[in-house]
Amino acid sequence: MDVNKIREDFPILNRTMCQKPLIYFDNSATTLKPDCVIQTITNYYTYLGANAHRGDYEMSGQVDAQFEGARKIAQKFINARYPEEIVFTSGSTMGLNEICIMLTSQYLKDGDAVLTCQSEHASSILPWMKASKKIELQYIPLDSHGKITLENVKKALNDKVKVVCLAQVSNVLGYQTPIKEISELCHARNIILIVDGAQSTPHIKIDVQDLDVDFFVMSAHKMCGPTGVGILYGKKKYLDVLEPVFYGGESNARFDQCGHVLLKESPLKFESGTQPIEAVLGMGQAMKYIEEIGQDRIHAYEVELKRYFLDKIKDMNHIVVYNKDSECGIVTFNVMDHGKMIFAQDVASFLNTKGIAVRSGQHCAKLLPEVLNVNSTVRASFYFYNTKEEIDTFVEALKEVTLENCVNIFF
Amino acid sequence: MDVNKIREDFPILNRTMCQKPLIYFDNSATTLKPDCVIQTITNYYTYLGANAHRGDYEMSGQVDAQFEGARKIAQKFINARYPEEIVFTSGSTMGLNEICIMLTSQYLKDGDAVLTCQSEHASSILPWMKASKKIELQYIPLDSHGKITLENVKKALNDKVKVVCLAQVSNVLGYQTPIKEISELCHARNIILIVDGAQSTPHIKIDVQDLDVDFFVMSAHKMCGPTGVGILYGKKKYLDVLEPVFYGGESNARFDQCGHVLLKESPLKFESGTQPIEAVLGMGQAMKYIEEIGQDRIHAYEVELKRYFLDKIKDMNHIVVYNKDSECGIVTFNVMDHGKMIFAQDVASFLNTKGIAVRSGQHCAKLLPEVLNVNSTVRASFYFYNTKEEIDTFVEALKEVTLENCVNIFF
Repeated sequence: MDVNKIREDFPILNRTMCQKPLIYFDNSATTLKPDCVIQTITNYYTYLGANAHRGDYEMSGQVDAQFEGARKIAQKFINARYPEEIVFTSGSTMGLNEICIMLTSQYLKDGDAVLTCQSEHASSILPWMKASKKIELQYIPLDSHGKITLENVKKALNDKVKVVCLAQVSNVLGYQTPIKEISELCHARNIILIVDGAQSTPHIKIDVQDLDVDFFVMSAHKMCGPTGVGILYGKKKYLDVLEPVFYGGESNARFDQCGHVLLKESPLKFESGTQPIEAVLGMGQAMKYIEEIGQDRIHAYEVELKRYFLDKIKDMNHIVVYNKDSECGIVTFNVMDHGKMIFAQDVASFLNTKGIAVRSGQHCAKLLPEVLNVNSTVRASFYFYNTKEEIDTFVEALKEVTLENCVNIFF
Repeated sequence: MDVNKIREDFPILNRTMCQKPLIYFDNSATTLKPDCVIQTITNYYTYLGANAHRGDYEMSGQVDAQFEGARKIAQKFINARYPEEIVFTSGSTMGLNEICIMLTSQYLKDGDAVLTCQSEHASSILPWMKASKKIELQYIPLDSHGKITLENVKKALNDKVKVVCLAQVSNVLGYQTPIKEISELCHARNIILIVDGAQSTPHIKIDVQDLDVDFFVMSAHKMCGPTGVGILYGKKKYLDVLEPVFYGGESNARFDQCGHVLLKESPLKFESGTQPIEAVLGMGQAMKYIEEIGQDRIHAYEVELKRYFLDKIKDMNHIVVYNKDSECGIVTFNVMDHGKMIFAQDVASFLNTKGIAVRSGQHCAKLLPEVLNVNSTVRASFYFYNTKEEIDTFVEALKEVTLENCVNIFF
């Protein structure tokens, strides 16, 4: 993998931040976009322009071909059995909410339980807390590292649980959940398994058939694609029978004044209104780009970067890393000064002055601090366009992080 | 208004369709994008890149400033009282669905009535038909032209009606609904007024305070902006008390394992998950572009184009126009051949061979055919970048529309 060549694909890497070359380590929040994705989107604006599924003219036919082409790219990308299993959404959050609302209103009963865990993202937990029926949320105990183990999943399963909803990769610690094994456990008990792939899809090869998940969501912007678009995958047997959450143009075949509504088949019944067309095309291009580089190589390189970083800081005792053994490009840490923890946001602000973009806070996983026993953390998340030289600069900057230096940047 | 100069802003107008210069008359479906909007979006990809509301670094601060700047542009564009009244959505369809779901679950009771009419778009009617409570849909009778009159609204109002939900401009016939007067009637009866501005916002100046509407939705892509983004406007008093439909990252201040969730204030509580950032910025730019040209001039010019067209075809008796007197750029018609109506889709397909893009069908307003007594129509919708020369070509093409010529294009 020629990282320097890859970096040429990303025009934003030419920009500076605080007069320093930009070092972008906030890839779990969103990723940078390569030229090919930007070109796909501007090509829509400058050449295609029409709405999808609506016109009777050549230009709209060209849009339809690209739009449905993007669906087939997505189908192949996660190895869904049918293109009809790929529903376009505005992103993972919307996908998780839609699944929750559909299952709550059409499948679950008051008192049924949904099994989750404390490291889940707000988008995965809150919809169940706010569901229209009384859904009991149960939590798989995490091990001392904050990890989901198969053993703990087995212990947590019980007859009340009708749905298991888990991230394939945690957005704070980066641990991989053993989805395939959990799927077997779930299906033996007739439990529906929903998987949040927001943080896995950008980094590892996804095969929804092999994993045998019932629902799966992802966001394009976390994998070099545009914001405002993602996928809700559902097994055909579920999408065939579920009623959508939203209604509008293009999702219905006809309706009359008496309230008789004939919906189209999946996926169109779930895609009311004008879709984010250029974003869908951009997502398709991003998937092609990721596949060309190869997810195996992307993942191996991220792990290499993380190991390189951990090796470099192994003697820096003022850095506390919470996820040393997770096989990913995420490093979640705090910085100490004379035994006191420096406020994570101050660390991030100091790193900013060196041109380094990291995230601080609770990373939308607001139950996890209870497990880690810290209120907030700094998260550096690497992606395949980052380099060891950037990590060298990062480590040098971390050497300078003291309470005094952090306070100084504000005065 | 220098149309030729304006046309230079739209790169897509250089393309051809069926080897003819593109004549784009499908502006009610979606509009073309000017260079300044395309540049704003590519600028995000090549220079800004970060997520919004999440980072502690300079680049994310720059995104936040532009993102919230776009909210203020939108506030000014529709003259909302507060920026907090502007909620970003994926478009009008999502906005109408969200309002319907919130009001149904939190305000309406079984048996309450919502007043609509037969010319409404599917996105405005279907959510109520599919609502979680038994909402009675009542219909304002349209006059013989398919128009909503204040007289008929007065007759239709009754004590069961708790919500009135109407488009400001019909997407098929282009009539303007007397919203301000209807608002007075509604508020005298304590009725909530929801206005679908998808087809009005691109063409006339909107002032939600002057109209005194309670909720208002619009889509950016109908007014030179990107797809996948729009606005849900709600009066502060409603947004302050309504619970959102979706939950996730950024909409909550904190939550705990027991299900206590503290939401942020509006608009953030309604904006869970990563927003369509580049689309929001593009929408802001589109609004600035529209304002620079001036909605008054845009509307006057569209009406001028329509009159020009009607004048040109006044002796062509085989063209039946359904909305001659509506003050807009929409012409909805059918073509006859020896007393028989030519299938609208065949007319559209024939016009395509001349490079002309129009829409045929029911235009997502599937109750309207009962009023017009025709199953489908052809819709040509003009916008400010269209020209009289394009209409000349259109009229010449219409002279050639015969059953025989339409059939010939398929063989």
